[in-house]
Amino acid sequence: MAEGITRRSEDFAQWYNDVVRRAELADYAPVRGCMAIRPYGYALWENIQRSLDRRFKETGHRNAYFPMFIPYSFIQKEAEHVEGFSPQLAVVTHGGGKKLEEPLVVRPTSEAIIGHFYSKWINSYRDLPLLINQWCNVVRWEMRPRLFLRTTEFLWQEGHTAHATAEEAEEEARRILDIYAEFAEREMAIPVIKGRKSESEKFPGALVSYTIEGMMGDRRALQMGTSHNLGQNFAKAFDIKYLDRENRLQYCWTTSWGVSTRLIGALIMVHGDDNGLILPPRLAPIQVIVVPIYKEEERTKVMEAVERVKGLLGDRVRWEVDDRDEYTAGWKFNEWELRGVPLRIEVGPRDVEAEQATLARRDVPGKEGKWAVPLEGLGEAVEQALGEIQEALFKRALAFREEHTHRPTTWEEFVEAVEDGFALIPWCGDAACEERIQEETKATNRCIPLEQEALPSGARCVHCGKPAVEWALFARAY
Amino acid sequence: MAEGITRRSEDFAQWYNDVVRRAELADYAPVRGCMAIRPYGYALWENIQRSLDRRFKETGHRNAYFPMFIPYSFIQKEAEHVEGFSPQLAVVTHGGGKKLEEPLVVRPTSEAIIGHFYSKWINSYRDLPLLINQWCNVVRWEMRPRLFLRTTEFLWQEGHTAHATAEEAEEEARRILDIYAEFAEREMAIPVIKGRKSESEKFPGALVSYTIEGMMGDRRALQMGTSHNLGQNFAKAFDIKYLDRENRLQYCWTTSWGVSTRLIGALIMVHGDDNGLILPPRLAPIQVIVVPIYKEEERTKVMEAVERVKGLLGDRVRWEVDDRDEYTAGWKFNEWELRGVPLRIEVGPRDVEAEQATLARRDVPGKEGKWAVPLEGLGEAVEQALGEIQEALFKRALAFREEHTHRPTTWEEFVEAVEDGFALIPWCGDAACEERIQEETKATNRCIPLEQEALPSGARCVHCGKPAVEWALFARAY
Repeated sequence: MAEGITRRSEDFAQWYNDVVRRAELADYAPVRGCMAIRPYGYALWENIQRSLDRRFKETGHRNAYFPMFIPYSFIQKEAEHVEGFSPQLAVVTHGGGKKLEEPLVVRPTSEAIIGHFYSKWINSYRDLPLLINQWCNVVRWEMRPRLFLRTTEFLWQEGHTAHATAEEAEEEARRILDIYAEFAEREMAIPVIKGRKSESEKFPGALVSYTIEGMMGDRRALQMGTSHNLGQNFAKAFDIKYLDRENRLQYCWTTSWGVSTRLIGALIMVHGDDNGLILPPRLAPIQVIVVPIYKEEERTKVMEAVERVKGLLGDRVRWEVDDRDEYTAGWKFNEWELRGVPLRIEVGPRDVEAEQATLARRDVPGKEGKWAVPLEGLGEAVEQALGEIQEALFKRALAFREEHTHRPTTWEEFVEAVEDGFALIPWCGDAACEERIQEETKATNRCIPLEQEALPSGARCVHCGKPAVEWALFARAY
Repeated sequence: MAEGITRRSEDFAQWYNDVVRRAELADYAPVRGCMAIRPYGYALWENIQRSLDRRFKETGHRNAYFPMFIPYSFIQKEAEHVEGFSPQLAVVTHGGGKKLEEPLVVRPTSEAIIGHFYSKWINSYRDLPLLINQWCNVVRWEMRPRLFLRTTEFLWQEGHTAHATAEEAEEEARRILDIYAEFAEREMAIPVIKGRKSESEKFPGALVSYTIEGMMGDRRALQMGTSHNLGQNFAKAFDIKYLDRENRLQYCWTTSWGVSTRLIGALIMVHGDDNGLILPPRLAPIQVIVVPIYKEEERTKVMEAVERVKGLLGDRVRWEVDDRDEYTAGWKFNEWELRGVPLRIEVGPRDVEAEQATLARRDVPGKEGKWAVPLEGLGEAVEQALGEIQEALFKRALAFREEHTHRPTTWEEFVEAVEDGFALIPWCGDAACEERIQEETKATNRCIPLEQEALPSGARCVHCGKPAVEWALFARAY
C-alpha cells in the first residue's frame, strides 16, 4: 500500500481521490466543482484526444470551433432541451462593465448554437452530410463534484452532424458508438456494453441515445460515451433545411455525440490498485520508466549501461530515465507505481555484468512480474511486454465484469445482484417501473443492450411482473 | 478578381471580411464579438497548434488545463492586472439556478488562477523550473470586433512558468520570443521585428513585455505574439514561494506568453490578394489541389492519369482531388485560388498524351506561374515547388516591409512615414511624448527593437526634440 493512499477495499471513493491527488492528475479549484488538470493528467487526455481524433478524421469528420456563449433564448427553442439543461446553467449577465440586454449561457453542450450555424451553412443536398467535431470546455453546474467524474467545467469533444435522410443519421449515430466502443476496449482496455438509453435516461431532445457502459472497480456503472440520433427535433427548432435533388425544401436529420475527461476517471477506477494507478500502455504518457540502481562506486558503469538501454529503446516506446540522485531506488519504484507506468526497467550492477536488464510489470506485483532480458533483445522484449500488459488489463477487467454481472429471475435476486454489480433482466420497458426500481435499490437503467438474446418465452419483468419486452441492464452508477 | 470579394486596394477591411467569409474560415456569431471558426479555418489553427506545440515540448514545456472561472477577488490581487483587464471582463453571476455569493470572471488570461495553483504546487527548488502551457479559450469583451483579429472569445495558448532566479525568468521570456519569431518566419512566411514593449504598452503586471510585430498588407502593424517577464509581481500577489538549497524561503520569478487565433488574421492580411487567400505551404490544410479537365469522352483516360498522380503524391504532401462533376474546371480554379491552396495540378487530355501534369503556382498568376512536369518526376517537382513558394512568400513579405519602413529625421517626415508604414526613430522614451504622437498621428509605439544600432551622436527624439535614448518603432496598428 502506497503512502497517503487509502486502501481501495476500505473506501473506494477516498482511494480514488487519494490517487488523483497523489499521482498529480488533477487538483480542486477555488471555485466549487471546478478543477485544474495537471500535466500528467493532461498528457493522458492528449493521448485520448490524439487517438480519437484520428478515428474521427478517418471517418470524414473535420474539427471546428463554435462560440461558448449562447443567447438564453436559443436554449429555449427545443422544449426538452431547455427543461433538461436549465438547472445546470452558468449565466453571464455582465460584459465589458455593463449589464447585458440578454443574459448569455455558457455552453452546457452546443446543439443550440451549432443548430443556428447549420441553418446558415446548409442550403442544398450538396452540403450534406456535414460532419463536424469540436474539442472544447463545457459547463454544467454540479452540486456533488468528483474530480474527472462530475465537474462543473469539463473538457470533451462533441460531434454534430447533419444528414439528408433518417437512415444516414441513424447510421452515423451507430458508427460513432462503434468507434467509442472500439476505442474503449482497444486503447483504454475497458470492456463496454453498447446499448440504447431508456426514455427517461436519454439526452434531452434526442430521438434515441446510444451509450457505452463500463463497470468500475467498485462494481458501479459509468456511462463512458453517448451518441444521439436527434431525428428532426433540432432541425425543426433551428430551421436546418436543405434543397433536395428534386428542389424540394426538407428538414435535415442530425446527430450529436461526445466523450469527456470523465474517461480519465474510468481509467483510474477500472485498472488502479492499492499502490495507485495502472495505466494501459497504449494511453500511458510514460510507458517505460528506467531506474538505475547503484552504490556510489558503481555509478559510472551502471549509467553507461543506461545509455545503452536508451539507445535500444529509441523511438519504439515512450520512456523516461529517473536518474535523480536525491531519491533512493525503492522510493522511485513506489513513485512510478503510484503513477501507473506499465513497465519498469531496472539496471543494477548485476544486470550490467550479465549484459541484461530487469523488467517489472506494474500489473503483476512481486517476483512473478519480474524477469531479466538480455540487452541485445531489449527493444523487442519491451514492446512485447507492453502488448501483453495491454491485453492482460483488458482480460482482467472483462473477467471482473463477468464475475459481477448477474441475471436475477426474482426481485430478491435482483436486489442482491445490484448490490454486487450489474443486473441484466427481462424488463417491461415502463418508465414508472424504472423509477420505482431506482427508488427501491438506487439502481438505474443503464441501457437496453444492443446485443439482445431472445427472451425466455412468457418472460415477465423482474420488478413489476408485467410482460417483458426486452433485456435491460440495471446497476448503481456514477 | 474573385466574385464577391472587394478589391484589396479599394477597401482593405472589406476585402479582409469578404475573404474570411467566402473562403469559409469563420462566421460571426449571434453574440456580438464572437465567432465560429469553420473547418477550413480551424484546420489552419490545428497546423499552427501542432507546429508550436512541438517547439514548446522540445524546450521542456508540458500542457495542462486550468479552470476558466476565476473568483473576482483573485483578479484584484495584482494591482496593475485588475486595472488593465477590468473593462474587458465577462462576469458570471448565476449558476445552477442561484445567484452566486461571489461573481466569477471568465478568464481573460490566467495569471491569477495559475498563480493560485503554483503557490500550492511549488514547495522547493526541486519543483523548479515549472514550465506549463495551456491551449484554451479566453474572453475579453470587445467593442469593435474583427474576425480573428479582435473577438470577444478567442482561442490561444498561454505559457506560464516559474523559476528560481531573475536570470532564468528573463532567459525563458527571451527563449519563447525566439520560438515565436522563428515560427512566424519559417512556418507563416511572415518576417517579424522582435522588440520590447514601451511602459504604456506592456502587459498589466509585467516587468518587461516582449513582442513580435509584423507588417500587414495595408502596411499597418500587427502584434503577433507576446512574452512577458513578470518578475516577482505575481509571485508576491499569489504567494508563490520555494525553499532554496540553503533552506531559505524565496519568491519565484515567473513568465507568461501567448499567441492566438489572431495569427490566422495575419496569414490572410500578409499574403492574400484580390483573388483571395494565399496560404504558406507549411501551414496550408491542402497544399496541392488536383483538378482533372476533360470533356465527357475523355473522362476515363484523364481519371486514370489522376489515379497515377495520386499514387505519385502519396504521403509526400497534403493533397486533394476535386473531381466533382457539377462544377467546371474554371469554377474550381477560382474556388481553390480563393481558398489559397499554394499549388494546383491540372490533368487534361494533352497532359495525358504527353505523360505530364501541369503545375500552377497560386502566388504567381497567369502563364508565368504555370509549367508542365513529366509524371515520373512529379513527386519531387511538387515538393520543390512548395519549398519555392514558401520562400517566395517570405521574400515578398520582407521586401514589402522594407519598402514601407522609413527612418524619418523630422516630424514632417514622421507623419508621412506612418501614413505609409513603419517609422523607426530615435526616441526619448517618455510616455507623455508617446501619447502625443498617438494623438497627433494615430501611430503607436509598436516596440523598442531588440536589434539596436548605435544612435547618431547627439540624436534627438523626432517628436519632442529631447535627447533620444534608443530606436523605437512606430506605426498604426490593429
